[in-house]
Amino acid sequence: MVGAGFGGLSAAGTLAKGPLQVTVIDRRNYHTFQPLLYQVATAGLSPGDIASPIRSILRRHQNVEVLMSDVSSFDLDRRVAKIADSEVPYDYLVIAAGAGHSYFGHQDWEAFAPSLKTIEDALEIRRRILLAFELAERRAAAGQPPLPLNFVIVGAGPTGVELAGTLAEICRHALTHEFRTIDPARAHILLVEGGPKVLASYPDDLSRSALRQLQRLGVDVHTSTMVEKIEPGAVYFGDTRIEAAVILWAAGVAASPLGKKLGVPLDRDGRVIVHSDMSIPNHPEVFVIGDMAALKDERGKLLSGVAQVAMQEGRFVAKLIRREVVSGPAEQRPAFHYHDKGSLATIGRAAAVAEIGKLHMSGYPAWLTWLFVHIAFLIGFRNRILVLIQWAWAYVVYERGARLITGSTSLPGWTGEAPATVQPQENRSKAAD
Amino acid sequence: MVGAGFGGLSAAGTLAKGPLQVTVIDRRNYHTFQPLLYQVATAGLSPGDIASPIRSILRRHQNVEVLMSDVSSFDLDRRVAKIADSEVPYDYLVIAAGAGHSYFGHQDWEAFAPSLKTIEDALEIRRRILLAFELAERRAAAGQPPLPLNFVIVGAGPTGVELAGTLAEICRHALTHEFRTIDPARAHILLVEGGPKVLASYPDDLSRSALRQLQRLGVDVHTSTMVEKIEPGAVYFGDTRIEAAVILWAAGVAASPLGKKLGVPLDRDGRVIVHSDMSIPNHPEVFVIGDMAALKDERGKLLSGVAQVAMQEGRFVAKLIRREVVSGPAEQRPAFHYHDKGSLATIGRAAAVAEIGKLHMSGYPAWLTWLFVHIAFLIGFRNRILVLIQWAWAYVVYERGARLITGSTSLPGWTGEAPATVQPQENRSKAAD
Repeated sequence: MVGAGFGGLSAAGTLAKGPLQVTVIDRRNYHTFQPLLYQVATAGLSPGDIASPIRSILRRHQNVEVLMSDVSSFDLDRRVAKIADSEVPYDYLVIAAGAGHSYFGHQDWEAFAPSLKTIEDALEIRRRILLAFELAERRAAAGQPPLPLNFVIVGAGPTGVELAGTLAEICRHALTHEFRTIDPARAHILLVEGGPKVLASYPDDLSRSALRQLQRLGVDVHTSTMVEKIEPGAVYFGDTRIEAAVILWAAGVAASPLGKKLGVPLDRDGRVIVHSDMSIPNHPEVFVIGDMAALKDERGKLLSGVAQVAMQEGRFVAKLIRREVVSGPAEQRPAFHYHDKGSLATIGRAAAVAEIGKLHMSGYPAWLTWLFVHIAFLIGFRNRILVLIQWAWAYVVYERGARLITGSTSLPGWTGEAPATVQPQENRSKAAD
Repeated sequence: MVGAGFGGLSAAGTLAKGPLQVTVIDRRNYHTFQPLLYQVATAGLSPGDIASPIRSILRRHQNVEVLMSDVSSFDLDRRVAKIADSEVPYDYLVIAAGAGHSYFGHQDWEAFAPSLKTIEDALEIRRRILLAFELAERRAAAGQPPLPLNFVIVGAGPTGVELAGTLAEICRHALTHEFRTIDPARAHILLVEGGPKVLASYPDDLSRSALRQLQRLGVDVHTSTMVEKIEPGAVYFGDTRIEAAVILWAAGVAASPLGKKLGVPLDRDGRVIVHSDMSIPNHPEVFVIGDMAALKDERGKLLSGVAQVAMQEGRFVAKLIRREVVSGPAEQRPAFHYHDKGSLATIGRAAAVAEIGKLHMSGYPAWLTWLFVHIAFLIGFRNRILVLIQWAWAYVVYERGARLITGSTSLPGWTGEAPATVQPQENRSKAAD
């Protein structure tokens, strides 16, 4: 088992119930609850609240071993996975190493426009957002020419929408009374999407509702707008150059580069094209699941990269392996079928959209559903309580608790000016940009 | 006001009640509750639980401005503090920039033996501790020669004692059922102290009690033992060389280097030798408080670097300044007197010592006192609830919640071996070292 995301963990838990020795390999020692990463990036939760040690999650299964290591490659003929300084032999191999963001060939943009896939990413985004306000206040206090407090988010899928909505809230509420010179509420949040609508994978009515909810929060949404270029502190859309304190990237998907190591066909985004039983060509003992796998549903639509799909695939593959280990290989393996329980996307405080079968919800009811589903699925009872308390607290007092700037104290594109003198507070004019 | 630790914050809060403009400058955007840093280093709490944004703490005081910046130097004649790209003029200056650890001229040891003063330090120590177990398990699983799971802590003051006691608990309880090959309970924790006793600043009976409590937790305590040399993965005591997975430094104090920028006499540890009113020679408008100040009490003993002293000094100086601003300079300034409310040091679960006036306590009652005092002083109601829940949880289930390894995945001195193959679990022998 390679990877302890939603797919890997649900496969490991199901495999553990069989008469098998299971080895789970992950480059981290913890599982990340990715649907709440945006809360860490926007200072609502601490990393520890949305991450659980993989060993703790699986501690009760004595036949499961957890190894923390990168996987460098596979030798499919000898049936070994190569990790840091050793090899792990296998009878069956399940690969669930997930996906990251694609910069469409512009990998150099990453330094100026980080994306959100890991805890480290979330802390870097949090650092940039909070630092932008601190630097703006310091400049304003010294009477230096202000820098525009623009936040640009590229890509209006679920992550982009969550980030934009939450950022808007922070500017309007959480920070308003804490600065003496700048006015955080005057910060400008731009959500830029190349396609014609936000939340493209949702039905039209919910997309439109999400757009309205974003606009009500003060987010400036630009659809059908392609980013041409990103440089430190600025984004180009066609001929327009927008200076931005923080640029975030929430567009494009690139499956884990481990897929390339298998020597089998990949799709355009680097996903492994799997058989209907999730195995790869010529190697029925090797399975790829989750965001790394390209599998189409009955209507020919690619299964989307969400936790639900990965978890169902993990359980499916694990049951298949258990059955073969106990009863010998089947003549004809079953095909995986996805049972769609619905989709949820949050936008902000009491703002969300939900599609559950034929039922479409927006606003407060959708948000409440989203809230309970996400808390219920958080791994670890302790995490659930902690997250609930912090959300209740944030909801009542409009405050963000985890507002720590750690690491570097500079922002790309924000350079120092000529020396100046901090003015007495009464002599300053209130200005955000 | 330079620095928003315990001294700086209590001075700022008291100054804010006067007809004054207060500027608080800190290199971080948050106040760190230092007495609980060891809990972050040992994965019990998240950074966000023991840190509060300075702006939030002071938000109600409209006459207080918070600037996040390093202070590079002062011009005492022109009465300005120099920050990043500007200058901050002042009528009164209060410097409370704290202290770090001293490596007694061996600054190169820091890379191999980090000390614990900041959130970043705590995360680095947490990373090393957790990673040592992960790497040991991976090596053992591959049948490679084991590396000794030794943890060496240098210095048996309050921080060293807390770290040693908590580490011992983690090895004996929190991690025991989570590894398949190594046995964390066989890890070896050495606490090394140059002086003749642990917790040297406490009365003899409490020192002895602390020693017994540490030994009961399984900590190997060596007093009157000087460290001669530290290199990656090893410590030398005289001719003895001890290999260690993790080495932590909890000895020696070095006051903030900002003291040197004042051009006034410093003591051996870099503290500013202040007048009895906490001001510096020739500059009655400049005060130094907290860990940066050297002031002796009535018995000629240096006031120790604890939160209580800093907070009382902060309030004292703030009241003095307020009085002078309102009524004009006093002919004779009062002298600062420290009111000692007692000392508390924790060792581990239900293990602590307390000295409150004539009352000396050990074990469970001292630990309960410590617990309530520290939770009561945690800044922010939200933080108090979160910490309380996590402690209650850890107390009941013996688990550590914040076990995230972030950053690099290598340890100094632990190098890779020749390639090997991970053995089936049933073929392995259980071994810790």
